[in-house]
Amino acid sequence: MKWMKISSAANSTVKGIKKLITHTRVCREEGRTIAEGIHLAKELLNRNELIQKVFLREGATKNSEISAILHSLDSLSVPCIELPNSLFNEISPVENSTGIFCEILIPDNTYLNPCEDIVYLDGVQDPGNVGTILRAALASGVKYFAASISSAYFWSPKVLRSAMGAHFQCHFVQVDTLKKLKQQSRLRCLVADARGGKSLYELTWDKSPVLWVFGSEGQGVSDDALQQADSRVFIPINPQVESLNVAMAATVCLFERKRIKDCCSEISTN
Amino acid sequence: MKWMKISSAANSTVKGIKKLITHTRVCREEGRTIAEGIHLAKELLNRNELIQKVFLREGATKNSEISAILHSLDSLSVPCIELPNSLFNEISPVENSTGIFCEILIPDNTYLNPCEDIVYLDGVQDPGNVGTILRAALASGVKYFAASISSAYFWSPKVLRSAMGAHFQCHFVQVDTLKKLKQQSRLRCLVADARGGKSLYELTWDKSPVLWVFGSEGQGVSDDALQQADSRVFIPINPQVESLNVAMAATVCLFERKRIKDCCSEISTN
Repeated sequence: MKWMKISSAANSTVKGIKKLITHTRVCREEGRTIAEGIHLAKELLNRNELIQKVFLREGATKNSEISAILHSLDSLSVPCIELPNSLFNEISPVENSTGIFCEILIPDNTYLNPCEDIVYLDGVQDPGNVGTILRAALASGVKYFAASISSAYFWSPKVLRSAMGAHFQCHFVQVDTLKKLKQQSRLRCLVADARGGKSLYELTWDKSPVLWVFGSEGQGVSDDALQQADSRVFIPINPQVESLNVAMAATVCLFERKRIKDCCSEISTN
Repeated sequence: MKWMKISSAANSTVKGIKKLITHTRVCREEGRTIAEGIHLAKELLNRNELIQKVFLREGATKNSEISAILHSLDSLSVPCIELPNSLFNEISPVENSTGIFCEILIPDNTYLNPCEDIVYLDGVQDPGNVGTILRAALASGVKYFAASISSAYFWSPKVLRSAMGAHFQCHFVQVDTLKKLKQQSRLRCLVADARGGKSLYELTWDKSPVLWVFGSEGQGVSDDALQQADSRVFIPINPQVESLNVAMAATVCLFERKRIKDCCSEISTN
C-alpha cells in the first residue's frame, strides 16, 4: 500500500470521498461507494480487487483487527490515507467509527439466472430495511436482487453497512421495471401485500423458482407491482398489530419458502 | 388540557423532560418515559390515563393529525406545553420530529399468565432490535415479555418508538433471572442459539406454551441462559451468512411457532 497523510479538508481526495459518503447519486454515477468499519473491511479481503482507497483515523493501527486487515492488504498498490482525528470524524459515514473505511468499486450488475429465486424491492426506501432484507434473504438462500428506482440504492454506504457483507455474495440485476423483469425471468411472481390475497401458508409450491416482490414501508406495494402478481400473498398476523415492518415480512416469507424448499428436496432425495 | 408556553431551557419542566429523554435509568427509576411522534400519540388515545404531559413544537397544531390528537385529549386535565422551535429541536428525542411527544407513566409490570408463550431477552442491547422484536412477537401472538437487566429497557423512549405502539398490548414481567422465570412459569424453555442444537423445523410441539429466549447481538445467549434450555434451537441458514440479526431470528422462530399453532388448532377444531 501507498501510505500518505492528509490533514486538509480542502484536499481533493477528501472532498471526493465526502461527496461519495453524502450523495448516493454520486455513488450510482461514479460506480464507487464506501464500505465502513472493520466487518466490511474483513469481508473485502476476499474481494480486494474492489478496494480503491483505505481511510484510517490517525492511530487506528493500534487496533489489532485493523492492523491485521492492513497487513493482509499490504501487497496491494492502493493508497492508505491517514486522517487526523477531527477530519476523520467530520467525514466518517458513522458516529463512533472504529477508524477505518474503504472506497470500493461497485461490481457490475449481473445477468439473470432464471433458475433461482429473485427478490424485487418496490420502493423500499429505508437503507436499514434494504440491508436487513439482503442479509436475511441471503441467509435464506436467495442471491438475485433487483429494485425499483424508488428504492434505496443497493450500493449506498448505509445499505452496504446494514447488510454486513451480504453484498459480496449477491447478484444485482439491472432492470427498468418489474414488468420487464417478469418477462425476462418468466418466473412466478409473488407479491407480498398486507391487505389481502392468499395466506403465505396456503400457497401451493412446485420446484420452480419464484420472483418475490416486497413494497414500501408506508404504502406497501404499488399498483404497477400488483398488476404483475401471479399471487398476492399475506402473512396472517395478530390483528392487534397493524402490519409487520417490510424487513420482518420479507424474512418470514423467505424463510417459509426455504422451509418448503428444504423439505421438498428431502422428500425428493429420500 | 392546560395550555402553556415555555421558552427557557432553564425551566424545571424542560430540565426534567430532558433527563427522561437522555437517561434510560431515570425512566426506570421514575416510572415515566417519552412517547415520541404522531403514531404513538394516536395509540395513546386508548390509554390516555397514562399521559402526563404533552409537548408541542410551536405551530405544530397546523398539522391536522396533531390537531385531531389534541382535540381527542381536550377533556384531560394534563398540561400541553408549547416550546419554541429551537428549544423543541434541542430536547426532541429524534431529529426531524413532526412536533409532538408525550410524557407518560410506565404501566405496572404484570404477573405471569402461565398459559401463554413468553419471550425473554437475554442481553439484547440495541433498542431498535428490542422494539422490532416486541412488534414482531405481538404480530405472532406473543403478549408476555421479560428481559435480563443487560437488555435495553423495554420502556426506554427508543424501544417504545421502534415498537410502534406494541407496548400497549404487551405485558412485561419483572423477574430477576431466567432461572426464576422458568421456575415460576414452568414452561418449556427454547433457547435460540446459532451455534447448534435442534433445527427449528424439527422441534416437536404440543399444545403447551413455551418460553423463548433470544440472546445478545454479538455473543448470542449467555451460558446461564443455556443452562435453562430444554431445547437449544437453531435456524438452518445458508452457510455464506454468519448469522441472522437477533430480531430476524426471533421473527423466524415466532412465526414458525405461530404457523404450527394455527395449523394444530385447525386440526383439533376440524
